[in-house]
Amino acid sequence: MSVPDLDEARAVSHRRKMIARKAVQDAEVAQKTIEKGLLMVHTGPGKGKSTAAFGLALRMLGHGRRVGVVQFIKGAWSTGEQAALMQAFPDRVTWKTMGEGFTWDVQDLARDIAAAQAAWNAAVEMMADPTISLVILDELNIALRYDYLPLDRVVETLENRREDLHVVVTGRNAKPRLIEAADLVTEMGLEKHHFKAGVKAQAGVEF
Amino acid sequence: MSVPDLDEARAVSHRRKMIARKAVQDAEVAQKTIEKGLLMVHTGPGKGKSTAAFGLALRMLGHGRRVGVVQFIKGAWSTGEQAALMQAFPDRVTWKTMGEGFTWDVQDLARDIAAAQAAWNAAVEMMADPTISLVILDELNIALRYDYLPLDRVVETLENRREDLHVVVTGRNAKPRLIEAADLVTEMGLEKHHFKAGVKAQAGVEF
Repeated sequence: MSVPDLDEARAVSHRRKMIARKAVQDAEVAQKTIEKGLLMVHTGPGKGKSTAAFGLALRMLGHGRRVGVVQFIKGAWSTGEQAALMQAFPDRVTWKTMGEGFTWDVQDLARDIAAAQAAWNAAVEMMADPTISLVILDELNIALRYDYLPLDRVVETLENRREDLHVVVTGRNAKPRLIEAADLVTEMGLEKHHFKAGVKAQAGVEF
Repeated sequence: MSVPDLDEARAVSHRRKMIARKAVQDAEVAQKTIEKGLLMVHTGPGKGKSTAAFGLALRMLGHGRRVGVVQFIKGAWSTGEQAALMQAFPDRVTWKTMGEGFTWDVQDLARDIAAAQAAWNAAVEMMADPTISLVILDELNIALRYDYLPLDRVVETLENRREDLHVVVTGRNAKPRLIEAADLVTEMGLEKHHFKAGVKAQAGVEF
């Protein structure tokens, strides 16, 4: 009778664990049967909120779908993504930059409010377009945080969107009322950031 | 003497706050002068780790750069992104899917280890290509977690990469040694997930 060596024992134990893991995984997948448009929120202080939203746009475009983007803050770092998406998929991306720039650059409350309202109107129009599968409301959370838009009306409109429409809302400090309404909330946590080490914003990384 | 009404008071207070905020912001930006390739880690249980990495690829491509991707887990949900990037930027994206599928589907330790090693070799080759600005090592954390690759050697190679190369490592359970070496670490936290409500994986959202 041969005694299995350690490597073989590890291989056998690995296989046993993975068979059990696969059974759990398959059972979980089998329980999930609903298809519907999702309301997704990317919030938190970490990097990747807008970037993940634009990655999702890429995913949709890879499946032949159409995507809409409304930016509530003009120039909020996304020049690279905009250039790439507009160049690669000019017929399938609708992009509206409606904001007035970071609120600390604008320094004018009335202009900020008017810009947020115009951006929201563009968003409502985009969400009504049945050819668009995903609408990204980039930095909408900032406009909500500063009360530039009525929270209740915004959330109600998002909740009452058509059934198959996916929406991503990005920005720090998502309002609890929006989080409650969302299907998916990802909190991007900042564990470590190179800005603290004196590294500047670089093309392709921050914008 | 006219008394400012509440709206005017709010506008004035807003302007004052924003001027102060801008001064802080400008001072912070002025302190950041270093340009260098970053080692970025996207980890945590939440959604968006790989998606944000592919969003970053889009950003780089928008700036005319070249991007490389090595997938350590085959079929790890990224079919949409791959299709979109390869279709839109065939000359500027190098994509290698080297893994063997989720480890609980493979159930074979020796094959998993061999696949991880082959993927790592492809990564090393890609990082040596001076025309590539960003290399995405998708789900490398999984291979490290299961000890399919020697952690010390992987981290040393990443630390000793050429100065201008940006690298993103994705996957849950990033090793502390890797986090220590990284310039940027984002922990994607799972606040709320539609899978829990019985919603299935959908094209354009999960893959």
